[in-house]
Amino acid sequence: MLQPATRDTRALSGPTRLAHLFMSQFIQPGDLAVDATCGNGHDTLLLANLVGPSGRVWAFDVQERAISATSRRLGQAGMAERVELILGGHESLAEQVPTPVRGVMFNLGYLPGGDRSIITRPKTTRTALDQALSLLLPGGILAVTAYPGHAGGDCEEEMLREWSATLPQPLFHAWRMGQVNTPPGAPYLILIQKAA
Amino acid sequence: MLQPATRDTRALSGPTRLAHLFMSQFIQPGDLAVDATCGNGHDTLLLANLVGPSGRVWAFDVQERAISATSRRLGQAGMAERVELILGGHESLAEQVPTPVRGVMFNLGYLPGGDRSIITRPKTTRTALDQALSLLLPGGILAVTAYPGHAGGDCEEEMLREWSATLPQPLFHAWRMGQVNTPPGAPYLILIQKAA
Repeated sequence: MLQPATRDTRALSGPTRLAHLFMSQFIQPGDLAVDATCGNGHDTLLLANLVGPSGRVWAFDVQERAISATSRRLGQAGMAERVELILGGHESLAEQVPTPVRGVMFNLGYLPGGDRSIITRPKTTRTALDQALSLLLPGGILAVTAYPGHAGGDCEEEMLREWSATLPQPLFHAWRMGQVNTPPGAPYLILIQKAA
Repeated sequence: MLQPATRDTRALSGPTRLAHLFMSQFIQPGDLAVDATCGNGHDTLLLANLVGPSGRVWAFDVQERAISATSRRLGQAGMAERVELILGGHESLAEQVPTPVRGVMFNLGYLPGGDRSIITRPKTTRTALDQALSLLLPGGILAVTAYPGHAGGDCEEEMLREWSATLPQPLFHAWRMGQVNTPPGAPYLILIQKAA
């Protein structure tokens, strides 16, 4: 399936940039997508942009502050109508999203600029990740940006390693993408594709 | 710099597929590129396709059989004129390629279907990799597909790990992309971008 897309030659400077590159490659106008951790809304805005006016995005966060920031950002871009904002944990993803989706994004750790004691927890994250995989359409992708450097990041890393290593082949293509010339604790990307 | 590109939603089934995705994202018509290990010519054909009739590709291999196979493949696609085939080791890359390039591809290990005792060697490969980085334009990318499973693959992996980990930041963004739900010894991708 070869169709026009957007060429984006910005620097491959971190895992968020890679996540955006893959989402841009796979999500098309009219698609459905999920931002499981909307934070300040950067990923939500990307997804809203990619799915276009005929698509739909569900965006979750446990913090009111994150939902407000995302709502503001979407409003400024004129994309509020494409997105359903949900104040709640992403472990309710399967309940809230009624239909299979093309892409799901997770950005773990704490809210930038917010309360650093409110972090994603390995157990609820794992539940949400499993739900995200069930929601994926064949060929759809899940991108998880992880930050082993923050407090609690090591438990999360262990969970992610164990979880991703046991995903069944050939049903899932599961990748770890990390920078190799950075200090230990640098963020990395887990990218999963459900086979078509 | 956002321009139309080709959307390619095929399965992310292995490192070669990822290498092709990144090359397709960064190489544009009129660009110059290098295939340091042309093998059966699949990567050379991709690069020739991406640079278009106004671009140029230099393709190296130490085996006559690889050069012939690549030549045939390019001829069938009507792209022979875009490619300079060089029967020789890629450690002469800097001598043979007279100008900076947008992308360089390496596919290590032995020639599929050929003599498995003729493999890329860590020392010459490292020399060639350093030369490739010097040749890269700002923003240009180097993709190295490595096969730790073959005989000699462990030394090569050690060389690649040490080499990539010491590339200076912020001049190079250096990534390792490996599948996490595959048996040990699965091939992986090293992707390097020179900062713009």
